[in-house]
Amino acid sequence: MAETSARKRRGGGRAGNAARRVRLGVIDQMPWRLPVNVDRPTEPLTEEGVEAIHEGAMRILEEIGIEFYNAEARGILKQAGCIVQGDTIRFDRAFIMEMIGKAPASWTMTPRNPARQIVMGEGHILFGNVSSPPNYWDMEIGRKVPGTREMCRNLLKLSSYFNCIHFVGGYPVEPQDIHAGIRHLDVLHDKLIYTDKVVHTYSLGRERVEDAMEMVRIAGGLSHDEFDAEPRMYTNINSTSPLKHDEPMIDGWLRMARRNQGLVVTPFTLAGAMAPVTMAGAVAQSLAEALCAIALAQYVRPGVACGIGTFTSNVDMKSGAPAFGTPEYMRATQMTGQMARFYGLPLRSSGVCAANVPDGQAMWETSNSLWAAVQSGSNMVYHAAGWLEGGLIASPEKFVMDCEIIQMIQRYMEPEIWATGPEDIAFDAIRDVGTAGHFFGIQHTQDRYTTAFHQPFVSDWRNYEAWESAGSVWTPERAHHLYKAIIDNFEAPPMEASIREELDAFVARRKAEGGAPTDF
Amino acid sequence: MAETSARKRRGGGRAGNAARRVRLGVIDQMPWRLPVNVDRPTEPLTEEGVEAIHEGAMRILEEIGIEFYNAEARGILKQAGCIVQGDTIRFDRAFIMEMIGKAPASWTMTPRNPARQIVMGEGHILFGNVSSPPNYWDMEIGRKVPGTREMCRNLLKLSSYFNCIHFVGGYPVEPQDIHAGIRHLDVLHDKLIYTDKVVHTYSLGRERVEDAMEMVRIAGGLSHDEFDAEPRMYTNINSTSPLKHDEPMIDGWLRMARRNQGLVVTPFTLAGAMAPVTMAGAVAQSLAEALCAIALAQYVRPGVACGIGTFTSNVDMKSGAPAFGTPEYMRATQMTGQMARFYGLPLRSSGVCAANVPDGQAMWETSNSLWAAVQSGSNMVYHAAGWLEGGLIASPEKFVMDCEIIQMIQRYMEPEIWATGPEDIAFDAIRDVGTAGHFFGIQHTQDRYTTAFHQPFVSDWRNYEAWESAGSVWTPERAHHLYKAIIDNFEAPPMEASIREELDAFVARRKAEGGAPTDF
Repeated sequence: MAETSARKRRGGGRAGNAARRVRLGVIDQMPWRLPVNVDRPTEPLTEEGVEAIHEGAMRILEEIGIEFYNAEARGILKQAGCIVQGDTIRFDRAFIMEMIGKAPASWTMTPRNPARQIVMGEGHILFGNVSSPPNYWDMEIGRKVPGTREMCRNLLKLSSYFNCIHFVGGYPVEPQDIHAGIRHLDVLHDKLIYTDKVVHTYSLGRERVEDAMEMVRIAGGLSHDEFDAEPRMYTNINSTSPLKHDEPMIDGWLRMARRNQGLVVTPFTLAGAMAPVTMAGAVAQSLAEALCAIALAQYVRPGVACGIGTFTSNVDMKSGAPAFGTPEYMRATQMTGQMARFYGLPLRSSGVCAANVPDGQAMWETSNSLWAAVQSGSNMVYHAAGWLEGGLIASPEKFVMDCEIIQMIQRYMEPEIWATGPEDIAFDAIRDVGTAGHFFGIQHTQDRYTTAFHQPFVSDWRNYEAWESAGSVWTPERAHHLYKAIIDNFEAPPMEASIREELDAFVARRKAEGGAPTDF
Repeated sequence: MAETSARKRRGGGRAGNAARRVRLGVIDQMPWRLPVNVDRPTEPLTEEGVEAIHEGAMRILEEIGIEFYNAEARGILKQAGCIVQGDTIRFDRAFIMEMIGKAPASWTMTPRNPARQIVMGEGHILFGNVSSPPNYWDMEIGRKVPGTREMCRNLLKLSSYFNCIHFVGGYPVEPQDIHAGIRHLDVLHDKLIYTDKVVHTYSLGRERVEDAMEMVRIAGGLSHDEFDAEPRMYTNINSTSPLKHDEPMIDGWLRMARRNQGLVVTPFTLAGAMAPVTMAGAVAQSLAEALCAIALAQYVRPGVACGIGTFTSNVDMKSGAPAFGTPEYMRATQMTGQMARFYGLPLRSSGVCAANVPDGQAMWETSNSLWAAVQSGSNMVYHAAGWLEGGLIASPEKFVMDCEIIQMIQRYMEPEIWATGPEDIAFDAIRDVGTAGHFFGIQHTQDRYTTAFHQPFVSDWRNYEAWESAGSVWTPERAHHLYKAIIDNFEAPPMEASIREELDAFVARRKAEGGAPTDF
């Protein structure tokens, strides 16, 4: 009875629990789930501080304005009553707040496999792969090289394989061996074949966005109406800080808004470079740039799924180079989390580092940024696996290592760990063992030891001598072996033959038509 | 005016701030300070959960009891009204809570240099070096070797050099080339010569504790009364889990209590081995073992400075080996933090990992444990720099790398980062830069850029090409070079010649007398 009620308090008993693992090809890993962040967020700002940053963002929008290089957006915003002078648009705070008020606090995205549906908001913390590095590094190559389709595919396979990766972001590495005009077709094809998770499209001109929506529709076996009925995919746009939104990004934003798809806007406000050197200033500017894009989307389609992104970090004072996972980055992420809750919007942050190789620095910077994602109440964590060199390098070893941290964060969120029912306090077990014995063999341990603790896949917990006998393998090399084994044993998620044919035919036709223009 | 009041809110203006750095020999580092943890602690337990664990700890003390192998302690506790049967002592919860109530919520320790006084409690988070590994690893040696006095000295020099290290724990590596009977004399001599920070003594028999107190007294130039007037040093004892306190540890505990010195008790409750497999059970047992030692100290000397330590982790389910920096470790640390606040006692935790070398795994495990120290509201963080292989190896490279994380935690705690005064919101700067420029050269940036951001010492923030041109040096190797340079340029803190002579003479005399017995 006591045990039953204790389990109930823990929420669902051990069947749905945490430390349970599934064997999938090469390693044991935790099963797919949408982890809920149960920690109270870390909130450096006072209520007065939140008000001050809000006031700053509103004054930027009202008094300075944001440049929109997209004529359609200017027309829409003029119609909405905003003040348009040239490319610059000034927004009344009442308009901004009214529009933001229409955005849902949480929303779903449903990919071709409905079991991989994700929820943005409701306390969830979800993780995605590294996106958009032009270059690649792995231990076998041993140096930085331009990305290829093969590398991109392998990273997509990792994104598919790891249950702790919930969505597939942009290209995990830019396949520079594919012409830019058809790159989106090939990569999205690979993405939809090798994964069954929610996918992203770049907002880089009409053709790319329209092609992506059509391919996701086909892959899901959906009618146009079914596609439009709820978010199936998303885009992430970046403002061109300071205070600009460019033409193609806003074009994609509007197209996706009209089709009811997921929208995330993430200014890249590097304090001291594209934003003020002060974190409050950088955050205020970031919010102004993001909120006006969300207001535009809500005006065009009230209630459309929007998320606000933070990518506020600082520069290296010596070189001006961007730094990541710094104390300032962590606090800016937490501050933006407070502001996102103030505006009632789901939050996107990132897993980032400045390190060039998957070494100690890479892991403390990445740990800092991933824990800041937790502390900020982030719902969507971009670039959470595989990122190096400030986003200029993708690495499969780093991908595997990051997934270890992400799994630990997932396990960390399981309330079972801190359950305090009578069987958890274990008074009887403590009395039975007394002072002379140990807990290894007793029934209380036997009943629980297979699920009691997190089990890692790339960490080596053996003592030095056992580790040395096994070849003294450091973490990146262990990760490399795992990466190779996962790719060698990879099985793509099932896809109906007819859908695959339709997808292939679409790509062939669009290639024949010339793909997308590359002249902007 | 606005700027002045904004600075005031930040607490003291820029003169006393964070990002300010001092050049000390080899690197720029942050100045000595006692960082205050301004974050609200992460508290997984409900009030009911705190009560359940408290109840469990009290029942262990009342119904099962703890074995004390120290006859003097048994006599004292019998006199206090506890139930003594053989070596087992059962404690009434009213007695425990009355005694715990006498312990101060915060206390100071003042070493030979009064400027290095530290405060245990009042929200401070303080860091100490790795303590007690029998073995050593550095990149030059490239394998695990027994510790020597030279290695121990070098790690003491690092402990002295880094301002972010606040106290000097046990031997940073066991100098196995010194006979155990005189080892305490030589290492404490080195400790007092090479550092001017608060030091620790092992409670390993009468001679070692008495010698240590005498040497700290001499080094401080203190009379016996002055030494006894306030804590000048501390000991940390470990229970022998489950449920035992051994003879020499309690002997040292009593001697230090009577001389009014700092007392920290840290059970090593490895869930599934020396404690229940459930974290609540392991924490309850840990608390029971710790609280009875604190009650003993308070009975002997009411109001004596006590801290409660946590060292609750879990085993590897495959091998039974201890694991560190795991999700379970983090939550146990947070849970113990809640309990320490419940009892009104300062908290000690640790910076730990299972990794055998200073690689990625070492840094994510150490990051997890150091952030758990932050989240738990720990006041004293043992083993915070230099620990490998579950505490069996000390490494100077790991020491330097850990200090980078510790410095980041110190910087992370500086309220200036999230200040929101008008100059921080920087509306005028944003307006002046507008959409066309950037913030690099403007006055707002120029006024702040030298102190705006944390600056690392071992991280390499250059891009890949610059890093490659400089030799493609990974983090541990960079740390190795720094370690060598720091040692090569080390200057011991000043000590009066007369004090040095007295110290030397004391050591010589005690060696001539035979040091300490080594037969237990």
